[in-house]
Amino acid sequence: MRFVKDIKSIFIMSLLINAALFIIFWSDVELGLEAVFQRAIKLQVKNKVCDVNLNDDRPYISNKTDLKMIYYVTPTYPRPEQTPELTRLAHTLMHVPSIHWIVADDQPVCSDQVLSILRKTGLPFTYISSPKPYLYKTHNFPRGVANRRAALTWLHENVKEGILYFGDDDNTVDLELFNEIRQTKKVSMFPVGLIGEYGVSAPVVKNGKVVGFFDSWPGLRTFPVDMAGFAINIEFLSPNAIMPYTVGQEEDKFLVSTGVKLEDIEPLANNCSKILVWHTRTTKNKVPTLKIDIEKLNNMLKYDSFVNLLKELTKMGMAHVSPNNGSKTFIIRNRSKYDPLTDLK
Amino acid sequence: MRFVKDIKSIFIMSLLINAALFIIFWSDVELGLEAVFQRAIKLQVKNKVCDVNLNDDRPYISNKTDLKMIYYVTPTYPRPEQTPELTRLAHTLMHVPSIHWIVADDQPVCSDQVLSILRKTGLPFTYISSPKPYLYKTHNFPRGVANRRAALTWLHENVKEGILYFGDDDNTVDLELFNEIRQTKKVSMFPVGLIGEYGVSAPVVKNGKVVGFFDSWPGLRTFPVDMAGFAINIEFLSPNAIMPYTVGQEEDKFLVSTGVKLEDIEPLANNCSKILVWHTRTTKNKVPTLKIDIEKLNNMLKYDSFVNLLKELTKMGMAHVSPNNGSKTFIIRNRSKYDPLTDLK
Repeated sequence: MRFVKDIKSIFIMSLLINAALFIIFWSDVELGLEAVFQRAIKLQVKNKVCDVNLNDDRPYISNKTDLKMIYYVTPTYPRPEQTPELTRLAHTLMHVPSIHWIVADDQPVCSDQVLSILRKTGLPFTYISSPKPYLYKTHNFPRGVANRRAALTWLHENVKEGILYFGDDDNTVDLELFNEIRQTKKVSMFPVGLIGEYGVSAPVVKNGKVVGFFDSWPGLRTFPVDMAGFAINIEFLSPNAIMPYTVGQEEDKFLVSTGVKLEDIEPLANNCSKILVWHTRTTKNKVPTLKIDIEKLNNMLKYDSFVNLLKELTKMGMAHVSPNNGSKTFIIRNRSKYDPLTDLK
Repeated sequence: MRFVKDIKSIFIMSLLINAALFIIFWSDVELGLEAVFQRAIKLQVKNKVCDVNLNDDRPYISNKTDLKMIYYVTPTYPRPEQTPELTRLAHTLMHVPSIHWIVADDQPVCSDQVLSILRKTGLPFTYISSPKPYLYKTHNFPRGVANRRAALTWLHENVKEGILYFGDDDNTVDLELFNEIRQTKKVSMFPVGLIGEYGVSAPVVKNGKVVGFFDSWPGLRTFPVDMAGFAINIEFLSPNAIMPYTVGQEEDKFLVSTGVKLEDIEPLANNCSKILVWHTRTTKNKVPTLKIDIEKLNNMLKYDSFVNLLKELTKMGMAHVSPNNGSKTFIIRNRSKYDPLTDLK
């Protein structure tokens, strides 16, 4: 009898605990998870502003002071394609007057490589190290949220006016888009090419007003748009506007949190009939480990250029080099393969 | 007996025919195939120079006349990513003084879309329609050879001096590369990132001379380099230099046909220790067919912007629109799905 009673109370207890956990998770997944796991995992990650440059050092751009500043927020993360992606996007932004590039990088340290790309542009920029919480490292975490939140924090603390735009490092933007978004009064929207199963995601405009959305994935969203499909006037952006850690709902929940209404939305790009930005995606490359003894090569002298190339490769995250592990490498000369460089005469 | 004799002679005949075909194909695959199939398929494809602009219309670039012209040859082909790729590459080239962009397009007509991208750049350019021979349409044909050949022909007929560089529409180029290649006397070489299993393809330099190559795929090549890994002075380029229709051998056979020797090669990018160009690749998108009756929409009035967006989508090759076939589409408003636009109030 006593035994049955114990089982009963254990059963009821477990039911209650389950119910409590269920309510916590359901009511606010994000807060719930953070509250539960923050103590468990001890979050050590911190955002850090690595560098800020407020000067526009481009001699070929005439920076008219009456143009509103565009704050172009780019979340990025270390990978073999990071250097080329940022380089390529930089070339686009370098044509745009009155622009400030906020690059928020998902790595716990400030990267010399990223910083050197930013400095070469001559653009005003802010470089933030904004690693994602460890909590999300092992999950199917939403990429870029920690970065965009860090950028929003920096904006709230440092900027009073201008236009906010979220532009990923692999997107392609037509220069016309910048003239368009600079006019944004509250929230503007426009089509994004190469999204989903329609090949585009776009607001539908009737008599100059946004009346609906053409997007292949509704996802129970009030504003079914891509991150690259809207811009916001910073004066309209209250500190309460926040992006959630919820995959696929980032744009919608952020826009809803700004308090914007459907009737407020300003359709751009000729009433959303032109495509001025594309969600291009770059094929990911594996990071190979190359079995090469750099020390030995260095001692051989005369191959210092090759040693420097290997260091460059490592710095860009495009390969690891190890004396002990990795795939065997060779040098080619006269259609023959040579194993160590010493064989080359 | 008579029957056996017939069989015998048929067998011998077929052996002889096979041997003849084998010899033709083996001795020169390209010529052989062309000779055999040209009559069979009736090649109707012709290159056509769609437009040439020799003026540099960029107000922000000071074109010093003493800088050698760089002829940047970009093979391209129609696909959903063509417009963004060319747009993105244009933004890079627009920073470079003294450059002429040769875009050779694998489509049998001149594309208004491509032409409009080129005209917006302000760059000097040549736009060539250079469809690949029909012959190669069904095979695992080498992409971009017909285009590069067309560009070479145009160069031979119109240009006496300058530097030739092959730059694909999806590659990423650091602006420093242009200063480097402009110095090319005969043939220069330099590392290309994100190639093969080493993450890079690069010449190996010893005491300032190229002594070998670091490339994961030897492919029995004298010059195991990527198309983006070399530049040529046009004065060094004889009309006999030709690119073969052989997958994987295009670079090598072309370089061998120029008559360049290993000892002639000029190593750039700080003795091939820096990476200034990357073989980035863009994920391919499917071209969806959307079931939408454009005529009907047009008659409904008030949705002309949306009709124009659908036309833009088609023009960019990012979707087909048909009243009868394709996937059903819907419009989203207030988190609900509406089938025809007439339902939207």
